[in-house]
Amino acid sequence: MNAMSHAEQAKLWEIVRDIPVALLTTDDRGTLRSRPMVAQQPTFDGTLWFFTRRSSHKSIELGDNYHVNLSYASPEQNAYVSVSGLAQVVQDPAKQRELWNDEVARWIPSDPADDDLALLKVEVQQAEYWSGPATGGAQKRPARRASQQGKVSFD
Amino acid sequence: MNAMSHAEQAKLWEIVRDIPVALLTTDDRGTLRSRPMVAQQPTFDGTLWFFTRRSSHKSIELGDNYHVNLSYASPEQNAYVSVSGLAQVVQDPAKQRELWNDEVARWIPSDPADDDLALLKVEVQQAEYWSGPATGGAQKRPARRASQQGKVSFD
Repeated sequence: MNAMSHAEQAKLWEIVRDIPVALLTTDDRGTLRSRPMVAQQPTFDGTLWFFTRRSSHKSIELGDNYHVNLSYASPEQNAYVSVSGLAQVVQDPAKQRELWNDEVARWIPSDPADDDLALLKVEVQQAEYWSGPATGGAQKRPARRASQQGKVSFD
Repeated sequence: MNAMSHAEQAKLWEIVRDIPVALLTTDDRGTLRSRPMVAQQPTFDGTLWFFTRRSSHKSIELGDNYHVNLSYASPEQNAYVSVSGLAQVVQDPAKQRELWNDEVARWIPSDPADDDLALLKVEVQQAEYWSGPATGGAQKRPARRASQQGKVSFD
């Protein structure tokens, strides 16, 4: 399920590829919690891929779909992005080998064939972004304005 | 309902007061969506206050509690914060006058007595943050490490 056009995907990727760390929000038994995550992929076709551990998703069955949000914030660029998607925890050794890189190895001391290693696969359903003029150190005021005025919706 | 100690509140405020724009995630009929918001308050005692419009929360009854997440990201400081809370849309003319300021007036062209003006009141229930050494322009690698190593939980 993917409601974005190729043009929208390209526009989204152009913005978020420069903001490596996303905050992933999930519904944890009624409480919404977020944590930083870094997508691992050179290109984007509507799916975002994150390495994770199966054991860190004890309440999630492999393959189950669940709703997530990824938020991207660049105070320096005065850009804010909301990505809504359906996530699955999957184990796919071929894909894990394809996406594995030195960065991942540094924070998951493991290897692509580790039984506990998994991918969080997020099919993007809709995205919105807010932006304003980049302002360097003095971003405070324009950022506030941007939250009202700079909204562009992809959906 | 507020599970944080005064020390935890002080620590949370010390981090997030320097990150003006939060991404507020809500459950919009099953889809998790976020949008940038700026808290309007000089101090913090467990409640975050945001100006909003009643008409922008059509599906929410005044006073209803609903779960939200606020994520704060400072790529420059390599700091990421997740705040889970219970939100209510409230109308409180006295509080609105107290919190009203020139910044708010710039992006909500209104006045504190406007019938459509409201406050989003978020009672913080739990918060977590991840941080690493500040790295200026070269934040990419440490930020990725921070997402694994720098976690400190308040709860």
